[in-house]
Amino acid sequence: MHLVGIVMGSQSDLPVVKPAIELLKYFNVSVELRVLSAHRTPEEAASYAKDAYERGVEVIIAAAGKAAHLPGVLAAYTLLPVIGLPVKSSTMDGLDSLLSMVQMPKGIPVATVAINGSENAALLAVQMLAMKDKDLYNALCEYRKKMREDVLKQDENIQRQMREL
Amino acid sequence: MHLVGIVMGSQSDLPVVKPAIELLKYFNVSVELRVLSAHRTPEEAASYAKDAYERGVEVIIAAAGKAAHLPGVLAAYTLLPVIGLPVKSSTMDGLDSLLSMVQMPKGIPVATVAINGSENAALLAVQMLAMKDKDLYNALCEYRKKMREDVLKQDENIQRQMREL
Amino acid sequence: MHLVGIVMGSQSDLPVVKPAIELLKYFNVSVELRVLSAHRTPEEAASYAKDAYERGVEVIIAAAGKAAHLPGVLAAYTLLPVIGLPVKSSTMDGLDSLLSMVQMPKGIPVATVAINGSENAALLAVQMLAMKDKDLYNALCEYRKKMREDVLKQDENIQRQMREL
Amino acid sequence: MHLVGIVMGSQSDLPVVKPAIELLKYFNVSVELRVLSAHRTPEEAASYAKDAYERGVEVIIAAAGKAAHLPGVLAAYTLLPVIGLPVKSSTMDGLDSLLSMVQMPKGIPVATVAINGSENAALLAVQMLAMKDKDLYNALCEYRKKMREDVLKQDENIQRQMREL
Amino acid sequence: MHLVGIVMGSQSDLPVVKPAIELLKYFNVSVELRVLSAHRTPEEAASYAKDAYERGVEVIIAAAGKAAHLPGVLAAYTLLPVIGLPVKSSTMDGLDSLLSMVQMPKGIPVATVAINGSENAALLAVQMLAMKDKDLYNALCEYRKKMREDVLKQDENIQRQMREL
Amino acid sequence: MHLVGIVMGSQSDLPVVKPAIELLKYFNVSVELRVLSAHRTPEEAASYAKDAYERGVEVIIAAAGKAAHLPGVLAAYTLLPVIGLPVKSSTMDGLDSLLSMVQMPKGIPVATVAINGSENAALLAVQMLAMKDKDLYNALCEYRKKMREDVLKQDENIQRQMREL
Amino acid sequence: MHLVGIVMGSQSDLPVVKPAIELLKYFNVSVELRVLSAHRTPEEAASYAKDAYERGVEVIIAAAGKAAHLPGVLAAYTLLPVIGLPVKSSTMDGLDSLLSMVQMPKGIPVATVAINGSENAALLAVQMLAMKDKDLYNALCEYRKKMREDVLKQDENIQRQMREL
Amino acid sequence: MHLVGIVMGSQSDLPVVKPAIELLKYFNVSVELRVLSAHRTPEEAASYAKDAYERGVEVIIAAAGKAAHLPGVLAAYTLLPVIGLPVKSSTMDGLDSLLSMVQMPKGIPVATVAINGSENAALLAVQMLAMKDKDLYNALCEYRKKMREDVLKQDENIQRQMREL
Repeated sequence: MHLVGIVMGSQSDLPVVKPAIELLKYFNVSVELRVLSAHRTPEEAASYAKDAYERGVEVIIAAAGKAAHLPGVLAAYTLLPVIGLPVKSSTMDGLDSLLSMVQMPKGIPVATVAINGSENAALLAVQMLAMKDKDLYNALCEYRKKMREDVLKQDENIQRQMREL
Repeated sequence: MHLVGIVMGSQSDLPVVKPAIELLKYFNVSVELRVLSAHRTPEEAASYAKDAYERGVEVIIAAAGKAAHLPGVLAAYTLLPVIGLPVKSSTMDGLDSLLSMVQMPKGIPVATVAINGSENAALLAVQMLAMKDKDLYNALCEYRKKMREDVLKQDENIQRQMREL
Repeated sequence: MHLVGIVMGSQSDLPVVKPAIELLKYFNVSVELRVLSAHRTPEEAASYAKDAYERGVEVIIAAAGKAAHLPGVLAAYTLLPVIGLPVKSSTMDGLDSLLSMVQMPKGIPVATVAINGSENAALLAVQMLAMKDKDLYNALCEYRKKMREDVLKQDENIQRQMREL
Repeated sequence: MHLVGIVMGSQSDLPVVKPAIELLKYFNVSVELRVLSAHRTPEEAASYAKDAYERGVEVIIAAAGKAAHLPGVLAAYTLLPVIGLPVKSSTMDGLDSLLSMVQMPKGIPVATVAINGSENAALLAVQMLAMKDKDLYNALCEYRKKMREDVLKQDENIQRQMREL
Repeated sequence: MHLVGIVMGSQSDLPVVKPAIELLKYFNVSVELRVLSAHRTPEEAASYAKDAYERGVEVIIAAAGKAAHLPGVLAAYTLLPVIGLPVKSSTMDGLDSLLSMVQMPKGIPVATVAINGSENAALLAVQMLAMKDKDLYNALCEYRKKMREDVLKQDENIQRQMREL
Repeated sequence: MHLVGIVMGSQSDLPVVKPAIELLKYFNVSVELRVLSAHRTPEEAASYAKDAYERGVEVIIAAAGKAAHLPGVLAAYTLLPVIGLPVKSSTMDGLDSLLSMVQMPKGIPVATVAINGSENAALLAVQMLAMKDKDLYNALCEYRKKMREDVLKQDENIQRQMREL
Repeated sequence: MHLVGIVMGSQSDLPVVKPAIELLKYFNVSVELRVLSAHRTPEEAASYAKDAYERGVEVIIAAAGKAAHLPGVLAAYTLLPVIGLPVKSSTMDGLDSLLSMVQMPKGIPVATVAINGSENAALLAVQMLAMKDKDLYNALCEYRKKMREDVLKQDENIQRQMREL
Repeated sequence: MHLVGIVMGSQSDLPVVKPAIELLKYFNVSVELRVLSAHRTPEEAASYAKDAYERGVEVIIAAAGKAAHLPGVLAAYTLLPVIGLPVKSSTMDGLDSLLSMVQMPKGIPVATVAINGSENAALLAVQMLAMKDKDLYNALCEYRKKMREDVLKQDENIQRQMREL
């Protein structure tokens, strides 16, 4: 079974992170959920990242808001891919979190997804895991088919509604 | 040998893309370089993405500027991880490219790196490949050590210069 | 009778799109309403655009939010004018949608209107249709007169209120 | 022969406007080029727009920078489609021009293209004209094929260069 | 008695404009309140501005949102000072209105105040009128004293509260 | 003869301020040019503003960059209208200067013009002075006519060039 | 006992400022709370800053919104460190306050913290005071330990919740 | 003698940092200059910050660009005041660096100065040191007097130039 580490800077980020957890469970991927702050628990964050590979973590998702250093700080201590999930906070509409993650300087990338884009963080992790796991790849195929069918159903509904008007 | 597809929206993006190519070569990763436009060759772009997995491509890096749809369009046709490399163009300082890539709607992620962040796109690809390739993982370790040593050398130099003043 | 295709990236865009539908009906223009996602149903979106001209569609309005690729993707598969209607989503105040539509690279234009500017998307479509349809042109004249009279009435009201104070 | 009016707020916008003129000529569309300022010659601008339809103009392209009111002001006096071409000036990177055009209030749309997106302004005009002109539609098809071939050639070149390395 | 013209682009701007009306009344300045749209009633807006000087208007305040052309359009038809009051609308947080007003090209200034800065628009008008009206100047002195005293009272209150804690 | 005070935060703002000086001279308005810093010479800046009215200054133009407090600080010490001229500096493209001026809190307005909009600052000052000076008003009329004629000449030139092609 | 001056531009900023007051009390630092406006009571603000050092104030925290000149104005009249606390107001999401504070020109720094970052303003003040006060330094150590433990507790909770699912 | 640590993320930040070094020397403050990367040498950066207090460092200035985590990361490992100096890089005009520093989450402040505001970083450090060092305080007084005199001299020059015109 695969293992993805999800780290958030504060318990208050849980509502944003939840859809990622659920989606990973849907794909039968184990989740190691942690609250670790790049600033208030820097050493725990560093240790977490340093040991992650040894402990079997394959991808890390890090969610944070404002000056969102968490994914960059974790990425500095591990060679695992780190996915940055920018959290919208009460000011700046998430632009601060986004730029603090995506604009990483040369050498230490953070794979950044949309502001509050929890599902996409999970899907990106699954895509990485599926690179060498045919079963997971097939599960992703199924999931994408379902997404497609969901849109097609929406499309049918809307066309029916239009005819009935 | 690993294979990464690098797609750019126009030949003019080559100077931005070059450092990624070189870094992938450094890691002995094969590169399949293509010019494909999401808008001017949409069908070729779609075919490219659809066949990529079968042809052995493991990760796709897509570079584009302005309304930079290329990585999102490729991601719609493949389940491989797609890394978005936003290119700074003559207006808007790359913010348009960045937002057009990173703000992907639910379901189809693009792993976005910094504006013109070519090396990081390559390193992220290598990190993904290294998830199951111990040799590549070790090569990444070496590379990171070298980066570290390079900073330490800069640090020594600067301290020496300060003492000599 | 004229035919305008309205495509939205998700059923959740319907409230934004509705005023456009109503305004087109007011002008006796038929609307073909579809839910098609540039990312979750890329092939259906491509087919829709490719066949639109043959099926008699004269203008396409495409509404989408976030990294709003839909109008650009449709425009890549058709020569019909494509009007982009940026939808404001929960972050970035619509700036992401706007830039993802309006900053289209050379060769494939998207005629972009204001964020959530549904009525203007419809009016722009009608203006295009009216280029060769004198009756529609006259209907537009009437509509504009009514808008003018509505403002004049507001003006009278406000002047009366001021006198009565 | 078709007639497109191109209006710019100042002679200094000519370098931005030129590619549009050339592209319209390529499509055998006549261009009526004018310098009219929404602010320094408001009456001439108003007259121009009011008479445009009668004089046979079918689409208007208006280019302006900074607080770029020109396309909106013209659109207020005509029912012809008005395409807004935001010009990047020495400050604000064109964002001021873009927002001043695209955020038009309800009732008077401006079909806005990319900042300095001269070719796209012309192509959008041609697409509108082609709605009822099969020959022009076919010319557009040819043009798009050429764009596609140009990208394919770039693609071949780059693949060759890669092999030769 | 002095006369200030207040023009708003739509009746819906009244709540923003009200504080300006009240402040002008406080200073015994007559207000001529109008609803005139730069786009839906361009000719009435133009006439209003052209005749304003003759009718005795001394300053014009123009409030508008989104692509807020109204103050610039009025300024194009009059030599009276035009004060631009940018109205925050439902998207872009007023930045579009602000830039559409303040970034006026060379030749036709608009004296722009803060987004939704209604009182400041009125005060600026009164300051202009007071340039040659000693009584009004003295009234402004009084008003400013009152503002100062109001702050001093807040200051005393807060200091008292702190001591009582 | 009228008197306008022009204050700049640093001698380095002179190139931006120069067009305003020249335009005021053109209108026979005396200019009192000063270098006063809101931060490095706060008391001199305060005294300047406090005495300005007594010394016969009728309008103040204040130019500054970055956190451009100068016009607001002057406005706090005088009841004369203060025109803010935001200067573009080496970062942030003038947005910082603009917001620091235009977003003045309730009670103390600053009449803000475009970033680096030197001529418009001067014209706005002249318009204020012309409110009670018929000769100056007429001079403004002439100036505007000349601006109009200049545009008309540009228009003629461009039409001629088009015919000759 | 240490003394920190907290100045806010208006009583309405109190809710933002309160956490700073409480945190300073927690550290046994006396607070001198004042309402002083850079624009409505410029002389009182200037006097406050000029006398602060003599009166024993060691650090000043200044909170303000919009064109937030208060910290810069105070800093111009004192050599004490001035901490700027940008307050989010009803438009521009606090970006105006932030830029008006942080972009101070050469010579007069303002130590700016996050938008509405009240606790951090207080902590920064305490850190400055602790530079020479070992007891306060130790208190800061304790506080940081508590913050760390709070995160660790959150981390435990979340891990427990995950296991129980 | 006082000791300030200056840390930069890369040797390429030296030109930005230099004015700070020189200004600190001018005030007879020792500088410990280091190149330490939050991402490429995270452990060295952590150690540096952890030992700084023991080694006698009193204030830390940290300069970095893009996703500028350095000051926040150092601040997480020390209780000394950390001054953040955002460096403008090749994209985003320094806004990314600024937001990544100033928007620090609750608990760990970074005292942020202007983008490329090197002198102000140094002056802020000196102001902190001067809180308990009367000599340094007096030196700051002298420095500020000199700044004032420099502006007064500029003012005299400009007034002379104006008279001579």
